[in-house]
Amino acid sequence: MELRYKPEELTGLPRSVEYGEDRVIIIDQTLLPGEFKTVELRTVDEVAEAIMTMKVRGAPAIGAAAAFGLALYADTTKAKTKDEFMEGFYWAYERLRSTRPTAVNLFWALNRIKGLVEENFESPLGEIKRLIVSEAQKIADEDVEANLRMGHYGAEVLPEGKILTHCNAGSLATVQLGTVGAVLRVMHRDGTLKLLWVDETRPVLQGARLSAWEYHYDGIPLKLITDNMAGFVMQQGEVDAIIVGADRVVANGDFANKIGTYTLAVLAREHGIPFFTVAPISTIDMNLKSGKEIPIEERNPEEVLTCGGCRIAPDVDVYNPAFDVTPHKYLTGIITDQGVVWPPFERNLKRLFKRE
Amino acid sequence: MELRYKPEELTGLPRSVEYGEDRVIIIDQTLLPGEFKTVELRTVDEVAEAIMTMKVRGAPAIGAAAAFGLALYADTTKAKTKDEFMEGFYWAYERLRSTRPTAVNLFWALNRIKGLVEENFESPLGEIKRLIVSEAQKIADEDVEANLRMGHYGAEVLPEGKILTHCNAGSLATVQLGTVGAVLRVMHRDGTLKLLWVDETRPVLQGARLSAWEYHYDGIPLKLITDNMAGFVMQQGEVDAIIVGADRVVANGDFANKIGTYTLAVLAREHGIPFFTVAPISTIDMNLKSGKEIPIEERNPEEVLTCGGCRIAPDVDVYNPAFDVTPHKYLTGIITDQGVVWPPFERNLKRLFKRE
Repeated sequence: MELRYKPEELTGLPRSVEYGEDRVIIIDQTLLPGEFKTVELRTVDEVAEAIMTMKVRGAPAIGAAAAFGLALYADTTKAKTKDEFMEGFYWAYERLRSTRPTAVNLFWALNRIKGLVEENFESPLGEIKRLIVSEAQKIADEDVEANLRMGHYGAEVLPEGKILTHCNAGSLATVQLGTVGAVLRVMHRDGTLKLLWVDETRPVLQGARLSAWEYHYDGIPLKLITDNMAGFVMQQGEVDAIIVGADRVVANGDFANKIGTYTLAVLAREHGIPFFTVAPISTIDMNLKSGKEIPIEERNPEEVLTCGGCRIAPDVDVYNPAFDVTPHKYLTGIITDQGVVWPPFERNLKRLFKRE
Repeated sequence: MELRYKPEELTGLPRSVEYGEDRVIIIDQTLLPGEFKTVELRTVDEVAEAIMTMKVRGAPAIGAAAAFGLALYADTTKAKTKDEFMEGFYWAYERLRSTRPTAVNLFWALNRIKGLVEENFESPLGEIKRLIVSEAQKIADEDVEANLRMGHYGAEVLPEGKILTHCNAGSLATVQLGTVGAVLRVMHRDGTLKLLWVDETRPVLQGARLSAWEYHYDGIPLKLITDNMAGFVMQQGEVDAIIVGADRVVANGDFANKIGTYTLAVLAREHGIPFFTVAPISTIDMNLKSGKEIPIEERNPEEVLTCGGCRIAPDVDVYNPAFDVTPHKYLTGIITDQGVVWPPFERNLKRLFKRE
């Protein structure tokens, strides 16, 4: 895979999470789309707070922010002995770990650094500190690199034309570029993305608040629609392909993603529209055989009873599943950082992991 | 058809549109669900404005409101001669006619009164005025009667269990009871409605604001969901039938209804779920052969950029089709006030109108 574009050729956005020796710099996503502002976090507590309050969100972005939180500890601790240092390190690890109970990338990133520290426990303290900072930076850099690869793979297989997406799997959800976001940005640079349809994505509106903002920022021509307009737009022949992210892909190709994804999949098949998910291979969980094994998180009813901060409904019962599972039969292909996986997914996903 | 229930046995709500000699009294639906308030309209302009701004909405309610607008003109005009009267009448007719482009009941109600006036042009002016007022009242009364009939017909054919609906085709959309609302209310009285799934129905949220409010008001057990959750709920086997209203049904059974209806129809077929529309025969337009001929109203982008009064998106392009057209192939049956029409719709709709 030849990477034709560099990240800075694809987006005008800075990384959503960066490290600057004694500070973690993030885009405060709670202020978007009204205000585009970066915030500097100077302590582990501030990083933890930023994750908890969703100033930084999106599984890969959270992972990188937590890793940088440990780097921040390493660079700013006043610990003189290794014992003191390790005591503070485990405190920082636990503090960051307890921010979001279900974020897999968070645990993955923290454990990757903890493992490295424990492996190198015999090294001098200065060396351990350097290892932590460089590993955190590597986690962030690898995320951008993986997205860049997905972007190029995706642009190879998506048709020229009008693309529809759901939720936000863009720059803001990752360190930079996004998963879906990288594909859209490469297509935009190639001139093959004629129009982007952005589903607003109720209840939390990641499409309207974040995707519309970041793709508009990068000059991608787009139209925002409510989720229930997607079927009509397809019926009018105005959608050439659909790409969405994934929270978890399992061994047979079934995948969980933001609520509403399954409906788009059914509509796509009804209209003969290619339907892709974009996911780094770290999102693929080969331990689960089918989507039926994926637990669905039910969230606070307030998300449905309100919209963008306004109360919209009377005090009635609500059902609020945050995700749905799309059976693999609706899926055209899975765009990963190791290439595109085609049906039959069970066999080809197995091959992908053998090849690695 | 034996009518087992009277309107007051089915709902605790007053009529949503009433006439009181020199005023049209409506429930201001833009204030719901926060406030349940009636408003008195004293001029044709105020009635037209109330229709345009959706204080009164729903095709049959709009039809009755427009008819009462002409009654209001008849009761309050200062015209002394028949020529003066007719000039003002045609102005009022045009003013009311231009409020909403898709609502066939609006044109139907206005034309019914216009036809009557033109037929009785030779009568004394006082007689013409009385005819207008009593015809408008008849339109409203017939609407309640028609809904009551639809309610009983619908309850005969719908399965016992969990029903999903979209938008608001309830009491608030009609003069009283609703089209879909009457069916749900008869089922609720019969004990066959186990649970009502209410789609919130973005962008204007008629489901969350109005349906959830009025069905909860009448004690129907319900759960509110965002539109993009409907597919997931069906996938879980939690929906036994779907019923929606119709803004216009055409000769082959295709019908226009609130945006998102088409998506539900596709999902219903994918899951083998019966899918009905409920519509008085006044909604059936035998002059149009297929749904392709139905014009789709595109509304203000602000509806998508905001939600319940809150700004939710950056300043980007928006597409905001208010309705979509569902091809008849997705439809199980059309529940009318003259009975249930089954496929083949083209033949059976023709028969329905011959029988009349």
